[in-house]
This record gives sequence, structure tokens and C-alpha cells, in this order.
Amino acid sequence: MSKVVVCGALGRMGMVIGGIVSESPDMDLVGGVDVKEGSFYGVPVAAAERMGAFLDDVRPDVIIDFTIAAAAVGNIRAASERGIALVVGTTGFSPDQQEEIRTAVEGHVPAVISSNFSVGVNLFWALIREAARRVPPDYDIEVTEAHHRYKQDAPSGTATTILDILDAERGPHTRVYGREGIAPRGDEIGVHVVRGGDIVGDHTVMFAGNHEVLELSHRAYDRAVFARGAVRAAGWVVGKEPGIYSMNDVLGLQ
Amino acid sequence: MSKVVVCGALGRMGMVIGGIVSESPDMDLVGGVDVKEGSFYGVPVAAAERMGAFLDDVRPDVIIDFTIAAAAVGNIRAASERGIALVVGTTGFSPDQQEEIRTAVEGHVPAVISSNFSVGVNLFWALIREAARRVPPDYDIEVTEAHHRYKQDAPSGTATTILDILDAERGPHTRVYGREGIAPRGDEIGVHVVRGGDIVGDHTVMFAGNHEVLELSHRAYDRAVFARGAVRAAGWVVGKEPGIYSMNDVLGLQ
Amino acid sequence: MSKVVVCGALGRMGMVIGGIVSESPDMDLVGGVDVKEGSFYGVPVAAAERMGAFLDDVRPDVIIDFTIAAAAVGNIRAASERGIALVVGTTGFSPDQQEEIRTAVEGHVPAVISSNFSVGVNLFWALIREAARRVPPDYDIEVTEAHHRYKQDAPSGTATTILDILDAERGPHTRVYGREGIAPRGDEIGVHVVRGGDIVGDHTVMFAGNHEVLELSHRAYDRAVFARGAVRAAGWVVGKEPGIYSMNDVLGLQ
Amino acid sequence: MSKVVVCGALGRMGMVIGGIVSESPDMDLVGGVDVKEGSFYGVPVAAAERMGAFLDDVRPDVIIDFTIAAAAVGNIRAASERGIALVVGTTGFSPDQQEEIRTAVEGHVPAVISSNFSVGVNLFWALIREAARRVPPDYDIEVTEAHHRYKQDAPSGTATTILDILDAERGPHTRVYGREGIAPRGDEIGVHVVRGGDIVGDHTVMFAGNHEVLELSHRAYDRAVFARGAVRAAGWVVGKEPGIYSMNDVLGLQ
Repeated sequence: MSKVVVCGALGRMGMVIGGIVSESPDMDLVGGVDVKEGSFYGVPVAAAERMGAFLDDVRPDVIIDFTIAAAAVGNIRAASERGIALVVGTTGFSPDQQEEIRTAVEGHVPAVISSNFSVGVNLFWALIREAARRVPPDYDIEVTEAHHRYKQDAPSGTATTILDILDAERGPHTRVYGREGIAPRGDEIGVHVVRGGDIVGDHTVMFAGNHEVLELSHRAYDRAVFARGAVRAAGWVVGKEPGIYSMNDVLGLQ
Repeated sequence: MSKVVVCGALGRMGMVIGGIVSESPDMDLVGGVDVKEGSFYGVPVAAAERMGAFLDDVRPDVIIDFTIAAAAVGNIRAASERGIALVVGTTGFSPDQQEEIRTAVEGHVPAVISSNFSVGVNLFWALIREAARRVPPDYDIEVTEAHHRYKQDAPSGTATTILDILDAERGPHTRVYGREGIAPRGDEIGVHVVRGGDIVGDHTVMFAGNHEVLELSHRAYDRAVFARGAVRAAGWVVGKEPGIYSMNDVLGLQ
Repeated sequence: MSKVVVCGALGRMGMVIGGIVSESPDMDLVGGVDVKEGSFYGVPVAAAERMGAFLDDVRPDVIIDFTIAAAAVGNIRAASERGIALVVGTTGFSPDQQEEIRTAVEGHVPAVISSNFSVGVNLFWALIREAARRVPPDYDIEVTEAHHRYKQDAPSGTATTILDILDAERGPHTRVYGREGIAPRGDEIGVHVVRGGDIVGDHTVMFAGNHEVLELSHRAYDRAVFARGAVRAAGWVVGKEPGIYSMNDVLGLQ
Repeated sequence: MSKVVVCGALGRMGMVIGGIVSESPDMDLVGGVDVKEGSFYGVPVAAAERMGAFLDDVRPDVIIDFTIAAAAVGNIRAASERGIALVVGTTGFSPDQQEEIRTAVEGHVPAVISSNFSVGVNLFWALIREAARRVPPDYDIEVTEAHHRYKQDAPSGTATTILDILDAERGPHTRVYGREGIAPRGDEIGVHVVRGGDIVGDHTVMFAGNHEVLELSHRAYDRAVFARGAVRAAGWVVGKEPGIYSMNDVLGLQ
């Protein structure tokens, strides 16, 4: 019976995660943390400024963090100091912040860190890696993602992971985030960020050669698919050796 | 039996058009014009610099122009002065150039001017107009087009016509040609220009509301579909009253 | 303040509709009807067998029916006898049942009957009608729909309405529900029923000509979009003249 | 300089292949075979009934066969008896015919046999195999293909290979070629055959789980992509050890 605290409890993802944890027979939702204090699913939500004291009080086994990069780094340090396992879905870390996180976690606590917790997206990434290895070098690559009109970051963390996979397998490429005017194509990757309505999250990678196009795509129909993956990671991570894990480890992929 | 000259004869579209005209039983391909002189389909291609003399010599009934904006304006003037009907598929005219064309054509010769001559695209535009009238104002609109890696202009002339139709029906909107960084959506139209491989021409308009997305899309499989439409327009335009016509007039749409 | 009863209260759609009605400031959820009695959102759900007595008891202004064809006909008759307005989202009525419904409703009560209550789908149908009128007769038409793995009927009511629109505009065509073996295409409409996962509801109509394809498509991301439309229809229908109305009337579309 | 004969020379694929071979600097088109005799690209096309004598006469190094199953078996035998290498793109062989082909080829001549010769489709198959291995067993699979209105066989040979790959990786599944009436989904693979216009060849495999869909798709824009792959195979196969090879061997894919 793992005791769980959700950071970013009152955000869109935090609310969904809190609901799933509170209904999980083998988990115990003991609280949340957010900018302002409050409550959710019958447990208290502490203000971020007094997070340390709150953790000392409720003593969770694992923290699930869906906040913003600046806040998440502090949350990760607070958890690490107390030996609390981590699931981190926050994205947009700078290289410096990634280094801070690595230092805080390695040798101290187990942490699953991923820009996307759905089973399907993690398979999708694995297939993109395979495709990137096999598709001939003269094929052109374009990445398109679509999300709801309120999404703040562009491109999505999931798309950024796709671009990193492509670079790792095919060498670094210029990323072009839109085309206007005279724009013949060079040796670049086009990135297209569609925003509208209530779209949960679509991603497509296109490999275009002469007379043919190969596409891999993933569509999410409900944010719950991400939340459920994060909760699954939370159940998995408690008790593991200290270190940074990916969702592939949780899912037993490769 | 209409006598036809093709301007831009040695370009991608010009070659396809020349081939279709030369096989049409009711048309007579009498020559081409291009940057350098040469020949195609057994008839001479004159250098652009001596176009006037060439027209006086071969005396066509109609000119089909697929060149670039700067060249096309001169070609249109040369045709108008000689009373030769026009089919113009060149795109990218500035407002000033459009005005010049209007002055050259109206009252003098009949001209079909369109950014796309396929039956399907002209229907597609008509449906987009219908959709733009009916879809509630709070739906978000995004336009995506895909073409081969060598295409010079972005977005395509066909996509620009789509954007003009949307503006005409829903009022002018800011056009955003790519998103990167912190990019919440405003009251804008997103325009996405995909370039890769050998793609002939895809266009999609997305209307995204809460929990639903409506899309209209058109895909071309072969450049011949545009060429055939232009040749059909050339057969139609000879003998019409002077003035500017659209492909809708040729097709008898609306 | 309209008093509302939901038939099929404990089904997938009934639960969503009940939730929306119970939170609507200008509506009063007074009960439900389902195969077995129970309760939902704090109000009683009567067993279908004693529906008449229940209606006499709670006296709703309007009934929203999402059941199955056989049950819905009886529900409509029971409502009509008591002067209760109707919103009917049940599909799959036989021609005889449609005739029974017409007799029960016309001259007696106002009823909105539709196979789909989303704004987007109703616009989608209107655009399909436009396209069907304009697309040349030699273009081939194929209709594809996708829904979750548990959906009972194939094709969906929404797709059936699409096929009826196509027939009305282009004359009746044979409907081919799958192809296997030696299968050259005739003058038919292909209908493709995809079933899998949790897909809420996708529909696409393809018009394929030589070298080009025109497509119209609609995707729903959340069942709430249908439920919200049905509740909107319930707010609209109370007090209207007796007769059968479509969702176009509710939305003020043409 | 390989000497090439094309069987099915006057068919849609044969004509495209003959054109490519005749323009290849390292190949020599020496003739064709078809139902009736004739000529193509300046070389004779023999009637099928006198194929043996024709082969003895022109002595090709390799035969490219795009005919129908019944004819291809005989052509393969005739080539094998004469020690001529083979590229076979004909599809629709029965298990008995496959056995006959195996007997004729193995130990005698090298033969590349594939239902699709495009680089992209062969990569696509490899990715489908990867996906089939990794996607959880409770995901539903549906396969959709689209081709032009005149295509005779349904589903396509390429789609049949997809289905065979899925069966090999996930165990045999019932194939359902269309759904109509009451059709809840079982543990099956849905196969959807779209036919219309001039579509060159689209294939999509959908894996649908709860709240998410993963798709792999391939689109061909021009038949030349298949023809060019077959000609590449013809250049590769001459001089190889006797036996049956796949396009993966030609492409050096795994």
C-alpha cells in the first residue's frame, strides 16, 4: 500500500491522477501540493511554499509531479532529501535543470522521468527509433503534433522526445518550425504545431521519399491514458534501486 | 481547332500541358515560350525576350501561362495587345500586379485565372466556403498543405486561396505560419507547410471545437489533374466575352 | 425550468446526459427510466414496465430517449399520450417503426429526432449534402466509420444518415459492406466499419476521381459532445408546435 | 549488362517496368511475353504459348514476371529449366502453387519473390512486425487498404502480407472483411478494402487500445515506385546462389 502525494494537484493532469490514485486499491492518496493550499478527493493540498513540512508530516512513499520545470526541480530535491521515490511528468527542463535533477536523484532515490506515460506513446517512440534506423538517408522527415488551444508549450514534450530520437539515430538536423515565403526544403526536419479545440494529443512522423510516404502516428482520446501510465509508474518505482528510469523500464519494453 | 501556345513550356507543368494539348484532337499546339529557346513535342519554343515577334508569327488563339509572377504580367500584356485569350495558372501576384492584370485583361480579352485547375480543388474551395459560413465562430481553424521537396513558394497558391476564402467569410484573421516556444493560441489561423519527397499536393482545413474536429481535405495523385483542367479551360475560354473568369465558370459550378 | 426524464438512464449515454441535466441551471432532472429500477444523480430511475405510472407521477416537460428501437417506440407513444415533448437519439428504427413514430408524434407533441446531436456532425451532414450535389457522377464514394470495440450496431446511425443523404442527392446506390476475393468496383458505395479500442466516433466520406481524392471527415473526442447537443435540444423543444424536428432546426442551420 | 525479359509486358506494371529497363545503362531489354504477341520499347513481345522457344532464342539473364498466378507458375518453371534468374511480383498463389514454385526454384535458380517491391513498403512491413511484437495483446487491430477502382483482387497482396506478418507474431486471428448488422467485435482482425478513382496504393494498420490509437501507414503516389524496386531486384538477383529471396535481402534490411 503505497502512500502517494501529487504535486500540481489542482492542475488538469493532477486532478485526473488524484482521482485514479484515490480509487486504486493498492494506493493511498495522502495529499497534494499546489501553488495555493486547498483539498482534493478528501485529502489536503498544501501550498508549495510549505512543501517540506507537509512531506515530513504525511510521509509519502512516492511523489507524482506534473508541474512546471522551475517548480519541479525543487520538488525533486525535496523528495530526494527525504528518500521519497519519484514519478516526474513535467517537461521543458533546460540542460542545467536536467543536470540538477540527475545530481539530486542518482544514488539517492528511484525516479521515473518521462515526457509521456502512455503505453502507446512509448511503443510509438520505439517504432520511430526503428524507422529512423532503417529509412534511407534521402527520405525527408516532418513531425506534426496537434493539441488543444490552451496548451502553453510548442512543440509538445512528446514531440521534442521524437525529435531527440531522430537526431540520435540520424545525426542532428536543423529543426524548422514553420515555412513562409520562398522556402525550398533543405536537409532539415519540419516541425508543425497544430493548436485547436480540445484535441487531447496527436503526433505524426512522416518519412517522404520518391513516390511514397511512410507515416507513424499516435492519437490520444483521453488525458486519462497519460494519468493511468503515471500511476502505474508510481506503483512500480517504490522500492527500486536509486537512479533514473524511463517508462520503457516500467513497461518492460526492450 | 484552337491554336495554343504554352508559356513556361519547359517547366514541370508546361511539359505536362504541352503533352496533353498535342494529343487533343480539337487543339493545335503551335509553340512554347520559355527562358531559353528550344522545342517540345515537335514545335518550337521561343526565348521569352522575343515573345512578341513569336506570337505575331504563330498567331495562337489562346496562351496557357504557368511561369512566375514577374514574367506572367508581361505575357498577359503581350497576349492582350494581340487579342489572344488566356489561361493563367501562375500564382504569387502582388496586389499591384493583380491590378496590372485586371487593367490588361478587362475589356480586351477573356482570361481564366486560377491558382488551381483541378475539378476536385474547385469543389473543395466551394465546400470550404460553405463550411466557413456555417461553423460557429468559436471553432479554431488550421490549414495544412504538403508538397514535394522542391516547391519554391510557401504556402501554395491553392492554400492562399483557401485562406482568402476563410477571410472573406469569417473576417480577416492573423495567419500564423508556425509555432515555437510558449505559444497559446489566439484568434488566428495556423498555416502548416509540409515539404517532402515527391508529394503532388495535399491540402486540409481543420475546424476544431470542443470535443470534435471537422476536416475537409483534398489530395492530388498526379500533376496531370491540374494540367488537364488548364487545357479544359483553354478549350472553354476561346470566344468568350472579355473579362476575368474563374475555374468555377469553366466547370459551371454555382 | 424544464422538468426532464431520461430513458435509458443507466446506459453509457444516459449517464452522461443525466449528469449534464443535473448541472444545468435551467433544467430539473426529475427521474430516469431503465430496464431495472434504481437511481441516478439523486433521483429515482423507474423500471421500464411501470413507465406510464412514473410519468404520471413526476410529470416531466420533456423526455430524452437513448434506448433501443423496440423500447423507444413504446416510450414515444407513452410521452405523446401525455403531451410530453421528446428528444430521441435512439437509432435503428425499421420503416414500420418510423411510421409508428410519425403517427404518434405528428399533431400531438414536438419531437427532435436525430441520429447525432453534435453541432459538428450536423454541419458535416450539411457539407456532405453539398458535396454530393456538386461532385461529378463518375467519382467513386466510400464511407468509413470507426467506433469502440463494444458498439453493437454496424454501421453507426450517423453513417446510415450519411448514406441516406448520398442516396437522396445522387440516386440510390448499392451499399457494399466489405470486399473480399475478386472484387472489381461497380456503381456502388463502399461502407467500412472499423471497430477497436475506445474510439468515440470517426466518420469519413471519400470522393475519388481520376488522380484526386476529396474527403470530408468528423472526429468526436468525447461522448459529452453528443449528450450536450441532446440536452440543448431538450431545452429548445419544450413549447414548440407539434411535429418532428431535426437538429438543424435546433441549431438554426438552413 | 543483364539481359531482361518482362512477362506480362503489355500490362500496367509490365509497361512501366519495360520503360525503366530500357533506360537503364546496365540492363538490356531483350523482349517481353504476353497473352498476344506484339512489341514494346522496340523489342518483340512473344505470345505466351511460344514462350519456351522465345527464351531459347533471346537467352535472357533474368525474367521479371507480373502476370497472374496460373501463368506465373508456368513462366517460373520455364525459366528454371533454362537457368534464368527470376523476379516475381505476381500475387495470389494458392498453397499448392507456392509449393510448385518452391520445387522449381530451390537448388536451380535464384528468385526474388515479393508482393511489393517498394523500399517503403518493405520497411513498413518490418515496422509492422516490430509493432506486432510489442503492442499489448488486448489492443485491437484493423487493416485498411485503398486502391483504384479497377483492381481485381481484394485485399491486395501487400495487405495479405501484412495479415500474415500479424498472424506470425501474434498467433492466427479470424479475418473479418466487413461488418454489417449487429456486430460487436471479437478477437479478430478487421480488413477494409477501399476501391475508388485512381488510388495507387494506401495501406494502414491500426492498433487501438483504451483511449489511444497507434497507426502505421504507407502511401504510394506512383506505380513507378514498385517497378523501380523490381528492376533493382533484377539487377541484384543475377549471379546469386539458387533459392528464394525476399526484397529485404535485396535492400539489405535485416
